[in-house]
Amino acid sequence: MTNFSRLQARHLELFRDIVGAANVLTDEESLDRYAHDETEDLHYPPEVVLKPDTTAQVSRIMQLCSRENLPVTPRGGGTGLSGGALPQWGGVLLSTERLNRIIQIDERNLQVTVEPGVITEVLQNAVREKGLFYPPDPSSRGSCLIGGNIAENSGGPKAVKYGVVRDYVLNLELVLPSGEVIWTGANVLKNSTGYNLTQLVVGSEGTLGVVTKIVLRLIPLPKYDLLMLVPFRSAENACAAVSAIFRAGYTPSALEFMERDALEWVTRYVDSSTVKIEDDVQAHLLIEVDGNYPDVLMQEMEGIAAVVTEFDCGEILFAEDHQQKEELWKLRRRVAEAVKANSVYKEEDTVVPRAELPALLKGVKEIGRKYGFHSVCYGHAGDGNLHVNIIRGQLTEAQWNGTLKEGIREIFRLVKQLGGTISGEHGIGLVQKPYMDVMFEAAHLQLMKQIKEVFDPQHILNRGKIFD
Amino acid sequence: MTNFSRLQARHLELFRDIVGAANVLTDEESLDRYAHDETEDLHYPPEVVLKPDTTAQVSRIMQLCSRENLPVTPRGGGTGLSGGALPQWGGVLLSTERLNRIIQIDERNLQVTVEPGVITEVLQNAVREKGLFYPPDPSSRGSCLIGGNIAENSGGPKAVKYGVVRDYVLNLELVLPSGEVIWTGANVLKNSTGYNLTQLVVGSEGTLGVVTKIVLRLIPLPKYDLLMLVPFRSAENACAAVSAIFRAGYTPSALEFMERDALEWVTRYVDSSTVKIEDDVQAHLLIEVDGNYPDVLMQEMEGIAAVVTEFDCGEILFAEDHQQKEELWKLRRRVAEAVKANSVYKEEDTVVPRAELPALLKGVKEIGRKYGFHSVCYGHAGDGNLHVNIIRGQLTEAQWNGTLKEGIREIFRLVKQLGGTISGEHGIGLVQKPYMDVMFEAAHLQLMKQIKEVFDPQHILNRGKIFD
Repeated sequence: MTNFSRLQARHLELFRDIVGAANVLTDEESLDRYAHDETEDLHYPPEVVLKPDTTAQVSRIMQLCSRENLPVTPRGGGTGLSGGALPQWGGVLLSTERLNRIIQIDERNLQVTVEPGVITEVLQNAVREKGLFYPPDPSSRGSCLIGGNIAENSGGPKAVKYGVVRDYVLNLELVLPSGEVIWTGANVLKNSTGYNLTQLVVGSEGTLGVVTKIVLRLIPLPKYDLLMLVPFRSAENACAAVSAIFRAGYTPSALEFMERDALEWVTRYVDSSTVKIEDDVQAHLLIEVDGNYPDVLMQEMEGIAAVVTEFDCGEILFAEDHQQKEELWKLRRRVAEAVKANSVYKEEDTVVPRAELPALLKGVKEIGRKYGFHSVCYGHAGDGNLHVNIIRGQLTEAQWNGTLKEGIREIFRLVKQLGGTISGEHGIGLVQKPYMDVMFEAAHLQLMKQIKEVFDPQHILNRGKIFD
Repeated sequence: MTNFSRLQARHLELFRDIVGAANVLTDEESLDRYAHDETEDLHYPPEVVLKPDTTAQVSRIMQLCSRENLPVTPRGGGTGLSGGALPQWGGVLLSTERLNRIIQIDERNLQVTVEPGVITEVLQNAVREKGLFYPPDPSSRGSCLIGGNIAENSGGPKAVKYGVVRDYVLNLELVLPSGEVIWTGANVLKNSTGYNLTQLVVGSEGTLGVVTKIVLRLIPLPKYDLLMLVPFRSAENACAAVSAIFRAGYTPSALEFMERDALEWVTRYVDSSTVKIEDDVQAHLLIEVDGNYPDVLMQEMEGIAAVVTEFDCGEILFAEDHQQKEELWKLRRRVAEAVKANSVYKEEDTVVPRAELPALLKGVKEIGRKYGFHSVCYGHAGDGNLHVNIIRGQLTEAQWNGTLKEGIREIFRLVKQLGGTISGEHGIGLVQKPYMDVMFEAAHLQLMKQIKEVFDPQHILNRGKIFD
């Protein structure tokens, strides 16, 4: 179990038989392209890249790899932020990019059946044309794949009102490591028929099986939305305003938080003049409401504006038209890129009950002072989901890859103490794995490991991730 | 593993040590009281009833029963409809009724922490007083317990807009069969931290562990609702109207279907004069909308009325005031009782994609004609969840407990063919267990059984349920 076989020429022959020679890549450039995702600067090349385009091919690949004891790493768009798709053990990189059909948009039942290689935004646009809405909306939506979103249980800005990926997944076609194929559930909105394998697979980061078809529920597309940007003189006050909005009875369709640095860096990065950040402003909230009745939305925006005013905010910018909305959303969506362009960084995906956000932010800054790091924080505040970006800046190698680990551990201990957890939407993958013991006791980790063994007794599938 | 130990006097002594003598019941009347739930006329007395009131006591009970190889059946309010809480193997009945504290209503985070023995309606009323809403709402809400709702992943009329129990469960304290205690998740709205044990436990019918604390998310209470009752001359037309309402962009907060017999029987049963059922009416839809803006609700009701008119409906009854709403809801909620009072029956909890409802109803009636049974159908049509009540009537013993099984099997095959499943909210328990092979292939069932073994290698917990 510990030692995998090395890839041999005869394996390549067999793979060519299954997917065709054009879909078996071994040239160095290709291996290099699949060696990284968007996580820090990690680099783990596979020995071969396979691009199946049917469930049957995936099944045959898994059968072969089980028999030959070859490690398999499934991969979507390569936009992951926890290293979940990196082939740490070499072997087979199973790319789902050619499994990219939207099989059926079922307008009668408000469902869609897709393959995992469909780009999230492509799916969203396709259902939007039918007046339907698939809300989960990661910042990488233009390049990430639905299969990867399911692996990580992605969220995005709309989750605060509409829920995360798991709230839309009804049924999954899953190829087990043995090559057997099952459907995990049924195409229904309610299900009390045995254990919920669908929800066990969502968020399992490709460690239990390879998802080859997905049935998602859809909802009617809301017709209107309004957007505003609210500056605050204190970042903690901005966080405190978040839970006050919900306590006042409002459920925005997005409620995003950005620290001063985040908005300042991205404004420079995309060369935008939409927002002028006043000197005394420490953070912003980007707040959206949506629905079918413009008058109601206007009333809600006014109500929310009244709430935030209690938290010492500056002058609110109400987006005037579609173009200004797009501009504000572009700033929010490209924050991660801007931070990345500014410095190497480590991104932590903390999440707490939303009223604990001020305590989390305060704690992160204190821990930063103690360990000598600067952090830029932003995220889906309505969900209590704060992305903490630790900037490398002037940190030495010993600090960056040494003592910083203890600082991160302190952040995660604080998160747990506040009732939260160490990943809200990015997953554990490789980079959060060393911290799993902060969240889980031995008995709990043992249950997860044994469930992994039920599905994958040889540990050939995405070995080295989460806890493996 | 196959043979449990018999309960001995020394076990009773040890149990008295743990929970106190008053909470160890062995008298015949008590054993009899815990021998049935609301499923048909099944009767399985336990050997002893235990009523712990702390997690520590539950843990000690489970440790003892593991060591002594005694079967344990956890039980909530005893309102189950699939026999999930029946102690088929005798042994220990673990009643959660004294674990009945609402530990904390967290108004800052819109969450509540409760013990499993809280009555669903008690919880709903407690959070309502704070302006908050816990939507899952089984008909038995006045006597069922939250723990049982979690075991069966209950639904109820509000699920169509607000989702089922699993959509509200954030975190569970779980006592494993070994006596170890874990929290399955975190108190957060988003979570991508390892396998989702929370959702694995929801709907697992008390076979994986004993839930001792529950963290639920809450939402703001909608301020207004409107209700209407729509008669149809054809039951299939009523079903067809259901998906048309959603396709027109409306999401009612309840959308209930009742066949003529259902409404007629309950009207007689509760001696109500609210509804006069015209001779040519075959079915009704009960439709509710809710929200914070009365004008919007009125617009939505008019829009929905326009949709149903396309399906040859009769004169719509708009509930005039709170009292009339209550009266209509009472009729819907007490249908099951009325059917039960009319005849012995078997209730199937079918669910299909909602646009397939007309095909399901038509198929059920055809199968009934073939096997000679009369059925009364009603349920949560907005979710595609149809309760098929097979009336014993004049069926012989050989038909009722013999050939009828094949008829039920045909219904379930049809359900599967329509993309549905054999239980939407009642669970599998004892009575649907023989039909699990209709839904699941061997490889799938094997995964479930192995997951059971991970949690409960001795199979002491709720043995005989789902597939065990």
